[in-house]
Amino acid sequence: MSLRPTLDFLLYDWLHAESLAERERFADHSRETFDAVLDTCERIAREKYAPSNRIVDTQEPHFDGERVILPQATHDAHKAFVESGMLSAAQDYDIGGMQLPYTLSAAANSFFAMASVSIGSNMLTSGNANLLMVHGTEMQKEVFAKNEFAGRWSGTMCLSEPQAGSSLSDVATRAVPDGADFQDDPLGPRFRLTGNKMWISAGDHELTENIVHIVLAKIPDENGKLIPGTRGISLFIVPKRMVDTEGRLTGERNDVALAGLNHKLGWRGTTNTLLNFGEGKFPVGGKAGAVGYLVGQPGKGLFCMFHMMNEARIGVGTAATMLGMAGYHASLEYAKARPQGRPAGPAGKDSARPQVRIIEHADVRRMLLAQKAYCEGALALELYCARLVDEQKTGAAQAADDARLLLEVLTPIAKSWPSEWCLEANSLAIQIHGGYGYTRDFPVEQYWRDNRLNMIHEGTHGIQAADLLGRKVLMEDGRGLQLLAGRIAETMARAGKVPALAAHAAALGDALQRIGTATKKAWATGNPQEALANAVPYMQAFGHVVLAWIWLDVAHRALERDADKGQPATAGRVGATDFFFHYELPKIGAWLNVVESRDPTCAALPEEAF
Amino acid sequence: MSLRPTLDFLLYDWLHAESLAERERFADHSRETFDAVLDTCERIAREKYAPSNRIVDTQEPHFDGERVILPQATHDAHKAFVESGMLSAAQDYDIGGMQLPYTLSAAANSFFAMASVSIGSNMLTSGNANLLMVHGTEMQKEVFAKNEFAGRWSGTMCLSEPQAGSSLSDVATRAVPDGADFQDDPLGPRFRLTGNKMWISAGDHELTENIVHIVLAKIPDENGKLIPGTRGISLFIVPKRMVDTEGRLTGERNDVALAGLNHKLGWRGTTNTLLNFGEGKFPVGGKAGAVGYLVGQPGKGLFCMFHMMNEARIGVGTAATMLGMAGYHASLEYAKARPQGRPAGPAGKDSARPQVRIIEHADVRRMLLAQKAYCEGALALELYCARLVDEQKTGAAQAADDARLLLEVLTPIAKSWPSEWCLEANSLAIQIHGGYGYTRDFPVEQYWRDNRLNMIHEGTHGIQAADLLGRKVLMEDGRGLQLLAGRIAETMARAGKVPALAAHAAALGDALQRIGTATKKAWATGNPQEALANAVPYMQAFGHVVLAWIWLDVAHRALERDADKGQPATAGRVGATDFFFHYELPKIGAWLNVVESRDPTCAALPEEAF
Repeated sequence: MSLRPTLDFLLYDWLHAESLAERERFADHSRETFDAVLDTCERIAREKYAPSNRIVDTQEPHFDGERVILPQATHDAHKAFVESGMLSAAQDYDIGGMQLPYTLSAAANSFFAMASVSIGSNMLTSGNANLLMVHGTEMQKEVFAKNEFAGRWSGTMCLSEPQAGSSLSDVATRAVPDGADFQDDPLGPRFRLTGNKMWISAGDHELTENIVHIVLAKIPDENGKLIPGTRGISLFIVPKRMVDTEGRLTGERNDVALAGLNHKLGWRGTTNTLLNFGEGKFPVGGKAGAVGYLVGQPGKGLFCMFHMMNEARIGVGTAATMLGMAGYHASLEYAKARPQGRPAGPAGKDSARPQVRIIEHADVRRMLLAQKAYCEGALALELYCARLVDEQKTGAAQAADDARLLLEVLTPIAKSWPSEWCLEANSLAIQIHGGYGYTRDFPVEQYWRDNRLNMIHEGTHGIQAADLLGRKVLMEDGRGLQLLAGRIAETMARAGKVPALAAHAAALGDALQRIGTATKKAWATGNPQEALANAVPYMQAFGHVVLAWIWLDVAHRALERDADKGQPATAGRVGATDFFFHYELPKIGAWLNVVESRDPTCAALPEEAF
Repeated sequence: MSLRPTLDFLLYDWLHAESLAERERFADHSRETFDAVLDTCERIAREKYAPSNRIVDTQEPHFDGERVILPQATHDAHKAFVESGMLSAAQDYDIGGMQLPYTLSAAANSFFAMASVSIGSNMLTSGNANLLMVHGTEMQKEVFAKNEFAGRWSGTMCLSEPQAGSSLSDVATRAVPDGADFQDDPLGPRFRLTGNKMWISAGDHELTENIVHIVLAKIPDENGKLIPGTRGISLFIVPKRMVDTEGRLTGERNDVALAGLNHKLGWRGTTNTLLNFGEGKFPVGGKAGAVGYLVGQPGKGLFCMFHMMNEARIGVGTAATMLGMAGYHASLEYAKARPQGRPAGPAGKDSARPQVRIIEHADVRRMLLAQKAYCEGALALELYCARLVDEQKTGAAQAADDARLLLEVLTPIAKSWPSEWCLEANSLAIQIHGGYGYTRDFPVEQYWRDNRLNMIHEGTHGIQAADLLGRKVLMEDGRGLQLLAGRIAETMARAGKVPALAAHAAALGDALQRIGTATKKAWATGNPQEALANAVPYMQAFGHVVLAWIWLDVAHRALERDADKGQPATAGRVGATDFFFHYELPKIGAWLNVVESRDPTCAALPEEAF
């Protein structure tokens, strides 16, 4: 069973991805070049990623006292990915990129996430390098970003600290100028960093000759104090091994030491580390302190970081989606092959007849269709958001600005919704396998474990919800929410004319109105404590409305492309849409009740009553 | 943090467990003897179970070619449990039991499930022996059951086969008479069994000197054919090692061979096996075939087995509940200790202030209160069901019969509801821990993995739902459902008079009516295919209504006992009730919509459309 037909439909029939080739930046591209990229990634994922997914789960990274050891399969997968050119796919031709639209990158990367989500951490490397391309100096781009794009070096993002996870304002890593001439280093203003960074994915390994850490740290004021809050945060490049202006290793280690490996529930192919910066284990020039080069302006570190946030969150959403999809495909295959039981007939069960395959049981079908609705719907949403990224970057002024603002509103959903519902899909995939699903002889239990991370990293559910209800739907006088409502209204108008979809269009209209009401009522007192007390249920309802809209639009397009409704794929898309509107969308009532009433039950309960 | 106050309130204040001591069978008991049992079990769980919970997860059972090796901790826990006398707690004094009410057994066993759910498999041993006490011959009781109660031997239940999991009618293990004198064996009619049994918990180990397998198998007819369906199933005792009528090992192995260990996602302390019966590896008297002694009448095997089903399912529900409770307690402690972030105030966040403990964030409180509502509510339900078991066994005729029928209706909920919602509680416990929750440095990820089994074993969610909507609410002309409605109405009448609960009582009335309507509409066409297509959503809604009732009754009692509403525990119980009625009960609308319309979306989708 292949993902490709779904991906092709969404990209070409639904999102009209070919039309991107009409834009100047993508003018050398065409359906053919897009397909070639998809073909290559699909092949590498099949050959180098999928077969090793269990290996990276059972052979966890370990530290031999000197180096972090990863399975050979991880090295092979890394090599194949680098050779594909995907690390720099979005970059300009003149630095070796292929000027590929982000929509296509996202689609191509979905193959890797589905085959083995944790074997590679390439999104960190390209995200890191992309950030440097925007905020770095020419020298920083040349030395660091280009070597990352080439796969010689890899990248990390060092944000969290043991005492500062969700609360980045509490970052305590210090960066002090390194000598009187610190401004004169050709690699950027040179600082010495000291502090601990937690949850650093790919923080140490031997996959590449060097690792480029991007580190959040604070520069103390004249009294040696750190400025509270996020305003004081700056951004630094801290290479694991020192380099010169030609990008050659000088042979000296930087003062960054592995303090521990985190042993995780899943996602085990990616090393996760606690790193000590500047503890003096590897003094540079005889002096303790990790050498870091300032990126951008002091105090603007989070601003530079936020630049990457939307794409990173779409990346997490896509990973969650594809783990769900992997479970859906596995359980669909199992359900088509496994004989067990007989459907009850009016006269009871005739146990002399042979057993039927479990896909013939209504409840198994329900669990399959739920997975399809969650995962294919989520994939459509992620690709829609990826298309907005391209619009923001290459569209005409108004369209680009609209895309920017729509992305602001949709990103919390693109990140959170698949993290929750494609995890639920993975649980259903286990359930379909029965006892077998609970064993390590089948892949579905690993998908479920791997997927549990996605509700936590890159901003927890709670953080996303506060961002959505506390910031995104309010910003620019609510214009983002209005833009979204406009898009939804367009879909409703189109779908309302199709008999098979008209009832759904009406239901979506009601749901949208309910979201508007709930948003107003949540903020009726203007008190963020009251408004945000039920931010997560708000986000759950908002997400379900977004997904209902996405499915209605997809179904409309499927029927339009397949006028005689003869294709099974069309029946599948319309069926998933029916499922979503009958089984899922009605759930928003329960979530929005508490939002609208600013229900104080949880917030008001005294601590000692728990 | 101790479970005890919650347990004491539910047992004594709510269920009036002391009043059981007024019954003849329990006449020697009192609050003091009950408390002594709870004290002992709480202590053993704390000392011998909890400290080893991670050990049994990381040191999985393995086979050295001859024996299954378990950690020493498992041996120690087994020894302590046996010494507690809990294996035979429910039995008569004259065979060494303590004639303890089942309500107290269930409460006492909850400590073990919470401390380390998988380290022991004692419920299998006592369940197995209890079955023999009801259906076995005097000799079978003497030789097998008594040695199990004494902890010398342990027991298993061998139902499933690789091709027959949910569908027991497809059991293919054969049992043929062993020689012309097969009727004359003092241990019971002697057969030779051949076949494979899958998912056998505690199927092989060295914890005890012998293992007593209870095995479902079919006796071929005169043409050597197996009767299709469940009618052909008989029950056999198949010891791992052959024994004489004095219960001594004869020194000969029976022909039962370990064919494989299942490697599981969780619940790893309990060995799970594939066993081959009668493959000739250990011939008995020079002849292949596992020796088995018939229990009860031929063809009545499932009937004998069903006798144990309610208690086994309450056991699974309690295990799921206590895993949820363990996560709740762990995340509550973490939330009270972990500083992170600051609540947003009207003027934004003042990051110069110290961080607050995360229990001060509304969303963390929501996740804690949800866990409390799920897990303490589920515990109340399990104890309520346990109390019904005692009523069925020792109540006056009408009360006993009512209890029997109520149990029939409630058992699918007691088994399925905690499996789903206390698993969700475990996910919330991870979420509260953030990244730490995803590591093996904290216990919550293991609880989540362990708990995933409960929706599968002892009848999957789908099986429970079909049992509920296809059988239990219909049986005896729906009298079971009417009995339940009567109990709910009593609670509503009481709670309706209390201002703090009156609105909940009204909401419960509406919900109950909706269940009645949905039940009728599901069966309106009389076609089981249509009625049962949405049996799981029906069960989800039914479960939520049952839990709403339980909480309302608990809250009513809490307020009654604490007239000035001054105790934090009362505030907690009322808060959890408010939570359940505001956040959870309204979910039933979405589930019942599809039941009432007999929604065909899933069942009707062509296979190729998935």
